[in-house]
Amino acid sequence: MRDDKILLAHGSGGVKMRDLIEEVFLGQFDDEILLRLEDAATLPIESGRIAMSTDTYTVSPLFFPGGDIGRLAICGTVNDVATSGATPLYMSVGFVLEEGLPVDDLKRIIVSMAESAHEAGVRIVTGDTKVVDRGHGDGVYVNTAGVGELADGVELSGSACRPGDRVLVSGTLGDHGIAVVSKREGLSFETDIVTDAAPLNALIAAVLGSAPGVRCFRDPTRGGLASTLNELASASGVAIEVDETAVPVNEQVRGACEMLGYDVFQVANEGKMVAVVPAEQADAALAAMRGAPYGERAAIIGDVTDPAPGKVYVRTEFGARRIMDMLVGEQLPRIC
Amino acid sequence: MRDDKILLAHGSGGVKMRDLIEEVFLGQFDDEILLRLEDAATLPIESGRIAMSTDTYTVSPLFFPGGDIGRLAICGTVNDVATSGATPLYMSVGFVLEEGLPVDDLKRIIVSMAESAHEAGVRIVTGDTKVVDRGHGDGVYVNTAGVGELADGVELSGSACRPGDRVLVSGTLGDHGIAVVSKREGLSFETDIVTDAAPLNALIAAVLGSAPGVRCFRDPTRGGLASTLNELASASGVAIEVDETAVPVNEQVRGACEMLGYDVFQVANEGKMVAVVPAEQADAALAAMRGAPYGERAAIIGDVTDPAPGKVYVRTEFGARRIMDMLVGEQLPRIC
Repeated sequence: MRDDKILLAHGSGGVKMRDLIEEVFLGQFDDEILLRLEDAATLPIESGRIAMSTDTYTVSPLFFPGGDIGRLAICGTVNDVATSGATPLYMSVGFVLEEGLPVDDLKRIIVSMAESAHEAGVRIVTGDTKVVDRGHGDGVYVNTAGVGELADGVELSGSACRPGDRVLVSGTLGDHGIAVVSKREGLSFETDIVTDAAPLNALIAAVLGSAPGVRCFRDPTRGGLASTLNELASASGVAIEVDETAVPVNEQVRGACEMLGYDVFQVANEGKMVAVVPAEQADAALAAMRGAPYGERAAIIGDVTDPAPGKVYVRTEFGARRIMDMLVGEQLPRIC
Repeated sequence: MRDDKILLAHGSGGVKMRDLIEEVFLGQFDDEILLRLEDAATLPIESGRIAMSTDTYTVSPLFFPGGDIGRLAICGTVNDVATSGATPLYMSVGFVLEEGLPVDDLKRIIVSMAESAHEAGVRIVTGDTKVVDRGHGDGVYVNTAGVGELADGVELSGSACRPGDRVLVSGTLGDHGIAVVSKREGLSFETDIVTDAAPLNALIAAVLGSAPGVRCFRDPTRGGLASTLNELASASGVAIEVDETAVPVNEQVRGACEMLGYDVFQVANEGKMVAVVPAEQADAALAAMRGAPYGERAAIIGDVTDPAPGKVYVRTEFGARRIMDMLVGEQLPRIC
């Protein structure tokens, strides 16, 4: 492509848009279905049910330790689709580019998306690009929507948690939020923490295989573990009690949270999965997580109980019990 | 909702986001699948094939004669899915809201989306909301992705056009582009022209029923008829010749194009469909279009021919023949 920066004309539907698509996108997104360049992708589906999810990514900055908006946009939607128990198969990608964006930045993001999609085993089958005037965006916003195939009999739901169930998390909390915020302007601290952004469909499939009674999966992204557990407690009409000492947290994340005044339970993750599992299958689910990609530090962190429906509690290191509140107000804007 | 403007906290994953979803979105988007509030929607599909498409909408201004970004976001993606011959069924919606957006504006847009989805017979089944800082957006950007079900044997493609085929358009060209631009700051002209934004899935189904040999449908949005026909000519390795006098154009649109120096063939439409049909089914296709919603002014406008593969020609009123070029550079930024 002759231009080294994005122009409004790259979103115009004309010659420059065709060049951008052919010379930048299709080199990396080279799925035969996408390459047909029809207005809609036509896709085979074997089962009689699909799962569908979408997320828009507006993270700032676009590049951060261990990842970028592209990896986030693939992994986040793969994980949302996978929470239903479906096998993610197909993705759409919609870009909002800001006039003046260096084309090299866009290429880096696209390479990252293609690699992440390859890793997750999903196909990018359709897409769209818009360009907005300089100053009316932040380089790139990306929307992805994902479709997966649901096997017969898989019926997971956030409303299915029952007293006695156990709560698992697939690894350390807070890495993504702290990795992104460490690159924000005006914050002067350094850590080795990198984003945890990762596709968890293989991990979910492993848990489903070993613990077929699993009630539900949820990925604790914006709002962190606290939002996820509060949503589950509310949807199922149960209480959830978490053992603070059982929750895996990297030391540097713990330190950064203390310094910044964050509650690690409210910090965003992009490569972690919460599972609620009947007690008798909890050990099998834990073993499956630990044996799966990105699950080495999985742990059983709590229990579903019956009094106080809708409430989430933390048992602290010192034996006290406090409420795990949902985030009120804003903590880390533009984290995903 | 207590807030009358969007705050960053409405995108945080916490309490305010939950309130926005429950009190603003779910009142209008009340599909039982969406109301389950799972991370992914699970959806029945009867056939073994689906069609999928996506578009992000960044139109400026958000409200314009005859429509708004919400109607556009539903109709545009419904039409893209329908071009494959599929029945559009399910949609995801992803919002990027700008801090400070009046909640009443958001509500108007959501009402418009719900009404358009109802008209098109599609279900909004999953969604996402992000909030970006004041000044980093334009009130609202909306992404929609759509999934439809494809009947057995339907195999439409932009590469299927053959010499002898006839080219149809479902109505007047240029209305959307001129309606939007007439509301732009700094342009002092008034017309009665309103956007043509409309769901065309019923029209497509009617044509498929009457002219089952149809080669393909395309909606001439950004880049207008010129981009659409150039893409088809190129994909099929054929030439296309359009009879200028046969193309329906509203008088006020023609006048505005002359005044502004636009080529009406390059102006965006949001409720028009191009169909390429074998000659012997062209009259049946035309009758089906004219009898369908939004097809009263449908016309046969040209022919597929064989010399000069990839080229599109216009036969003018005076018998001359010129090339119908794709838009070069930018004409109407942010038109959809």
